[in-house]
Amino acid sequence: MAQSSSTDFSMKFHAKLCQAWRQQQSFLCVGLDPDMSRLPDVFQRQDKPYWKFCREVVDATAPYACAFKPQFAHFAAVGAEDELAELIQYIKTSYPDHIVILDAKRGDVGSTAAFYAQEAYQRYDADAVTLSPYLGFDSVEPYLRYDDRGVIVVCRTSNAHSDWLQKSQLADGQALFLQVAEAVAQWNTNDQCMLVAGATYPEELGQIRKAVADMPLLVPGVGAQGGDLQAAVCNGANSVKEGLLISSSRAIIYADSSAQFAQKAAVVAEKLRDDINRYI
Amino acid sequence: MAQSSSTDFSMKFHAKLCQAWRQQQSFLCVGLDPDMSRLPDVFQRQDKPYWKFCREVVDATAPYACAFKPQFAHFAAVGAEDELAELIQYIKTSYPDHIVILDAKRGDVGSTAAFYAQEAYQRYDADAVTLSPYLGFDSVEPYLRYDDRGVIVVCRTSNAHSDWLQKSQLADGQALFLQVAEAVAQWNTNDQCMLVAGATYPEELGQIRKAVADMPLLVPGVGAQGGDLQAAVCNGANSVKEGLLISSSRAIIYADSSAQFAQKAAVVAEKLRDDINRYI
Repeated sequence: MAQSSSTDFSMKFHAKLCQAWRQQQSFLCVGLDPDMSRLPDVFQRQDKPYWKFCREVVDATAPYACAFKPQFAHFAAVGAEDELAELIQYIKTSYPDHIVILDAKRGDVGSTAAFYAQEAYQRYDADAVTLSPYLGFDSVEPYLRYDDRGVIVVCRTSNAHSDWLQKSQLADGQALFLQVAEAVAQWNTNDQCMLVAGATYPEELGQIRKAVADMPLLVPGVGAQGGDLQAAVCNGANSVKEGLLISSSRAIIYADSSAQFAQKAAVVAEKLRDDINRYI
Repeated sequence: MAQSSSTDFSMKFHAKLCQAWRQQQSFLCVGLDPDMSRLPDVFQRQDKPYWKFCREVVDATAPYACAFKPQFAHFAAVGAEDELAELIQYIKTSYPDHIVILDAKRGDVGSTAAFYAQEAYQRYDADAVTLSPYLGFDSVEPYLRYDDRGVIVVCRTSNAHSDWLQKSQLADGQALFLQVAEAVAQWNTNDQCMLVAGATYPEELGQIRKAVADMPLLVPGVGAQGGDLQAAVCNGANSVKEGLLISSSRAIIYADSSAQFAQKAAVVAEKLRDDINRYI
């Protein structure tokens, strides 16, 4: 069921994103990847540990972030869907100007995609969801029908083996990931699409920026994965020095494993926000 | 937590699949895609309707099938993970020689993939899970570590817009989906990989078969999607006239919307099994 919140649901996704950037003076997206083996001791013996841990991270980092990105797999691995739902509802109620992205990388035929869209936008009430492009437009179209929600398509990922498929050279000389970028720019008729483009390949981030004009990009890979923040920000920003969500998860939420984890997460988030703002 | 069952978990996935084919004399995989708007009336007012509906379909079709494939999105859209878990546990306990495939098309970086693998193989105890190839080998490797489980990579899908990426022509003249097929054949060092190859493109199914030798294929698209069964079976079978899981979901489970749905599902499943066996 769609939950009510103070969000204006008549607002298009890009407009909402833009409002979040300007209001928060931040391009930082905090990734929420709870992992029992890395939570501070205090959560090991608690009921709903993921929800409680993430809520503290959210409260501590919200002043420095414009978006939160819960990673679906972390909750699904341990059957914590209820905690995920409670967390998203909490963010939307307490921080209605922040964007919530469900990082789930869905990708299936249209009839199935309609159910995944229902899950992301109705069950969890996420503002946006991440998707795989492998099945083509009809696997993305059911999400686009939710015209106030964001559709974030994976384009160029930050992992070690991503070259294999994503940099495949096509017969016309173009790399595959640029074909994906150009297609998604075409699908973006309602100001609701974004692309995932990792910070670990800042040059290619620049090529993607060129291919999609001012369309916003979700950029992971600056924290634990070691991407070059300055290059990513410079190459990824759009013509009005916006258009970016720089995502960091583990480097923020596991910055400290003591009871001071939330304060430390806030310190790391504040510094990252400031670094991004300086480079942009 | 991994559930116990009478399954021999020291057996490799391909061996288990082979045993299922031979014992059941069937290559039919029944897809379980429950949808509230299509369930017979009797389930509309019940608790746990997806679990109860699917259980009846499973009991009715098990004699004619060698595998069941619950589609994750259908359960996730309505928060029915507990029903999905109960269903898989029921199949594994009641029909231990049948294969259970969690159709979830996961695809994420390795650190996240480890959590999805935990979800599929430990939380749900599925024998196999479907994956997207877009992120490359390190996004698949965490699944391969479960050496008695199956890893089914999407290669050539049956949907209308699948050509766009999957048939992209590479600089060396090869279609992208064949590059995926050849790579997965390389990853298959432990007799645990399969590919998804739709029946709607039987010629390409033949190309894939040639590229992967005897590796088994999961073939959707023969029912509601209108693929040519005879051509798919002839082109998809391997050198020992096996190597196929022909999947049908809606044409079986929604064959009849009255209280007779299970009997009708059995009739359709039996006919499809017989047709496959005749063509092979």
